[in-house]
Amino acid sequence: MTDALRDTRFVLQHLLQAPAALAALPPYAEVDADLISQVAEAAHEFCNGLLAPLNAAGDREGCHLEGGNVRAPTGFAWAWSEFVEAGWPLLACHPEDGGQGLPHVVDAVLHEAVSATNPGWGMYFGILHGGYACLHAHGSPELKDRYLADIAAGRSLVTMALTEPQAGSDLGGCRTRATPHDDGSVRVEGTKIFISGGDHDLTHQIVHLVLARLPDAAPGSRGLSLFLVPKWLPDGTRNAVVVERIEEKMGLHASPTCVLRFDGATGWRVGEAGRGLNAMFVMMNAARINVGLQGVGAAAAALAQAQSYALDRAQGGAPILRHAPVQRLLAHTRAWTEGGRMLALWTALRLDEAHAHPEPAEREHALREASLLTPIVKALLTAQGFTSVSDALQVFGGHGYVSEWGVEQRLRDLRVSLLYEGTNEIQALDLWQRRLLPDHAQALARLLDRLLERVASPWAAPAAAAAERLLSSLRAVMDADAPAGLVAPAALRGCGLALLGALWARADDAAAHDGEAAFTRRKQATAAVYFTQLLPELDALLAQLDALRRDPRAAADTLALAAGAADGAGDF
Amino acid sequence: MTDALRDTRFVLQHLLQAPAALAALPPYAEVDADLISQVAEAAHEFCNGLLAPLNAAGDREGCHLEGGNVRAPTGFAWAWSEFVEAGWPLLACHPEDGGQGLPHVVDAVLHEAVSATNPGWGMYFGILHGGYACLHAHGSPELKDRYLADIAAGRSLVTMALTEPQAGSDLGGCRTRATPHDDGSVRVEGTKIFISGGDHDLTHQIVHLVLARLPDAAPGSRGLSLFLVPKWLPDGTRNAVVVERIEEKMGLHASPTCVLRFDGATGWRVGEAGRGLNAMFVMMNAARINVGLQGVGAAAAALAQAQSYALDRAQGGAPILRHAPVQRLLAHTRAWTEGGRMLALWTALRLDEAHAHPEPAEREHALREASLLTPIVKALLTAQGFTSVSDALQVFGGHGYVSEWGVEQRLRDLRVSLLYEGTNEIQALDLWQRRLLPDHAQALARLLDRLLERVASPWAAPAAAAAERLLSSLRAVMDADAPAGLVAPAALRGCGLALLGALWARADDAAAHDGEAAFTRRKQATAAVYFTQLLPELDALLAQLDALRRDPRAAADTLALAAGAADGAGDF
Repeated sequence: MTDALRDTRFVLQHLLQAPAALAALPPYAEVDADLISQVAEAAHEFCNGLLAPLNAAGDREGCHLEGGNVRAPTGFAWAWSEFVEAGWPLLACHPEDGGQGLPHVVDAVLHEAVSATNPGWGMYFGILHGGYACLHAHGSPELKDRYLADIAAGRSLVTMALTEPQAGSDLGGCRTRATPHDDGSVRVEGTKIFISGGDHDLTHQIVHLVLARLPDAAPGSRGLSLFLVPKWLPDGTRNAVVVERIEEKMGLHASPTCVLRFDGATGWRVGEAGRGLNAMFVMMNAARINVGLQGVGAAAAALAQAQSYALDRAQGGAPILRHAPVQRLLAHTRAWTEGGRMLALWTALRLDEAHAHPEPAEREHALREASLLTPIVKALLTAQGFTSVSDALQVFGGHGYVSEWGVEQRLRDLRVSLLYEGTNEIQALDLWQRRLLPDHAQALARLLDRLLERVASPWAAPAAAAAERLLSSLRAVMDADAPAGLVAPAALRGCGLALLGALWARADDAAAHDGEAAFTRRKQATAAVYFTQLLPELDALLAQLDALRRDPRAAADTLALAAGAADGAGDF
Repeated sequence: MTDALRDTRFVLQHLLQAPAALAALPPYAEVDADLISQVAEAAHEFCNGLLAPLNAAGDREGCHLEGGNVRAPTGFAWAWSEFVEAGWPLLACHPEDGGQGLPHVVDAVLHEAVSATNPGWGMYFGILHGGYACLHAHGSPELKDRYLADIAAGRSLVTMALTEPQAGSDLGGCRTRATPHDDGSVRVEGTKIFISGGDHDLTHQIVHLVLARLPDAAPGSRGLSLFLVPKWLPDGTRNAVVVERIEEKMGLHASPTCVLRFDGATGWRVGEAGRGLNAMFVMMNAARINVGLQGVGAAAAALAQAQSYALDRAQGGAPILRHAPVQRLLAHTRAWTEGGRMLALWTALRLDEAHAHPEPAEREHALREASLLTPIVKALLTAQGFTSVSDALQVFGGHGYVSEWGVEQRLRDLRVSLLYEGTNEIQALDLWQRRLLPDHAQALARLLDRLLERVASPWAAPAAAAAERLLSSLRAVMDADAPAGLVAPAALRGCGLALLGALWARADDAAAHDGEAAFTRRKQATAAVYFTQLLPELDALLAQLDALRRDPRAAADTLALAAGAADGAGDF
């Protein structure tokens, strides 16, 4: 059993006690510890067996646009058909659509394993479940009849077509138009960029979910509606969706990032007119958790490789694993990675509770917490994942820079995770403006309190002290009315460090009951590494915030000047 | 004038007062402010004019091994001939070898500019001056006669062949053998890896400096001697140096990283037998400063691109430069980058004083300081350069990940700088064990004291306080006998932060006399950013060190366990 799978079992069973939590949710009442273990093991087996061997070759071969169609790397379509045949796409779909009805937290385990073994391949179905959920919630009965079962089963793949050349993070600037047609369909015209899996040969049908404007739509994001635009029309003819090009990029060469031109393509509205963003947001929380898990998966895989390299590679007559600087890199990477796994899986479990708890008040409470945690999971775990992969690469010395060992590919592949699904800066603003400011960080405080209830670990006290310092600092910054855009990034990372502190204190407790002495010892040592070597960063972040709080106006002017912004301090 | 050139002028003239410092060094008595300005301007002009346009194309085209010879990307050989014709390789060579005798600090400006515009091209001559200095100091009269003038002029390029497949950071494990021949030459047999520019078509002749063992040599690093092995022998025949392959790597595709097989190649010893490492170390200090400048150059170029992108790119009707999170990324990058430039150029100036001061005591003092500063320059500026380029990439959003803007190439190209010329972990050990421990950090304390003498800036007090906290923490760790390998990385970064604090306090003063109000304003704002937003990290590092100091044995065991080192805590 790999380290990652072993640790996943610990997190689910001992730390989160996921089986008991899921037993309280009617749709998942039958998801017991055994089933979770089986699915997790099978996911790791599939990924290590089928996907890992295609990873480096896929990066080298890349994707090719030939005669208007995209060809994925050799073996990718075959791996997809195996994946479909084994029923993986259905994992978290509703039983009425043929799905297995498993919770997000189990789906999350699969996403981590895919990210660890072949993130390029994972991009093809990264949005599949989100597209399914969106159509399930907002599609008309006709659209659902026509597309939902195929999507649930993985016979159709899904893209999300949001970004346009002139409109990136600000979706309100979208110009793609949808013109209604007599038969209830629309004709879509416009160009969309950054469409992952915009075309490929893994499936025959591809379903594009496209943000566009109906005639007379309001300006800005309130005028956007969502449309389903299939690659193949119901009559079997090709829809007017043209792949203009595949982007050259830093990594993820196995995943075609397409520029798509909709040339009067036929589509159908999903959800209410003018509520397109709302319909898309159904996809967002789960997708962001999965992106955070890309950071965890990549770092976990790089850590395993680096540890094994350090054991095999001798210098001066001993393995370099005996060198303290190498141990330091590995220990820090482990503490970040295992911490990230706890945070992401816990958030996924809260999302399951938000969807499926029988009590509406509990659902609402869980949704609020999941929405608070999600931007932290997305931004902290991708940023730290990138740093951790880079640290693991460092263990290889010069060999880390050459392609042979594959760790440089992990670093290239992962970099985009800090950018897509909302840049990490946007996650920080979301957290600050929508999750912390409105209630003066009370929900965060309660959540940290609850995490630290009945924790016997000696680390509970430093974790609680860290939480207290964080909260008092955040509230002081709020009271000083410091500009959100300046404080949000440090605030997000600070929240993440405090949350990881609480989780590591719980993990230190839970590890005592794990039953495998070597695992317990290593887990408790890793907790100590977190508290003594990583958590201290919190106080540097709080000092940053403190400086912004003391004179927010001066701080904003200073940063604007140093940034070369002649127009002065930032707008938010 | 670019920002980087403008800032270089400020650092040299106002901050370091380089013209006055150089006037005290006999070989550089004629290097006045005008000459420095002219050379710096010409260097930036050459690099921006000729090298920058070849950068992206060189990355795409890469290097090719054809019929045993390496072909560099299109235009690279032409750019080299222009570079040679303009006399650049001779910049810092001795006049008796046809050189211009300019100081390292001016050569360093050139290296930053090359790194900012075409780091792949820069790799071909990265070691040229080091090779020149090595041969100048240790070569026999015959070897000097035959090779030195061509090297000085750039008609021959130089490689450094140290690493072997089984011997990376531990050079003592080298197995390449050198067998003496009747005529005073040797026959070299063995395989060397990671040879930058191991073959190419920029020059006809290539001179390899090879570490190898004579018969009956002592084991370990004391048995290594250095040999000059030319690609072409004096009689015009090809020497037995075979390019086995070019490595595939993360970046620097324009620079061929070769595996070279020496198949009984003819060579000649350079320096004393068994003193090969000693002879190579002549190259090391200057080369390490130049590697640090790769971090500065890449970050400066990425910053300039990101700032210009942020000004042009509109979202929601305003340039994203008006967004506070973007301003924060840019301001932090500027503070790190301009700080790094100060530190590197100051170190280069101390190296000039170490070589050329008329007083032996001053030379020795300057060499001690340069040797203390060099590992910090190399490790801090490359690690931080990588982070800063990544931050600048973040400004581009998703566009930063696609190749079009070139910033992802900068990130790929730069990653190796944390590894070569001695990994950053080895730099940290060098600093701790050889520069800090032996004198209980007294030299560092004096150096920080002197930097902060007569500084009127309001930042002088926080800079001095930071220096004091650092020193007391370092000394406490030394007294507790904590394992070097565990404390060294945090100690190095802490030293760097404190030194940058002292330099930023001086810069805040010096900027007041710059004479251009906009520059002064921005420089002083950037100093404020450093002190309020970046320097706080120091205390997190000191907290890490404090935890290691309190119970070094337990800390070492904990890290070893978390690293998965079954054999226990690290050896050093």
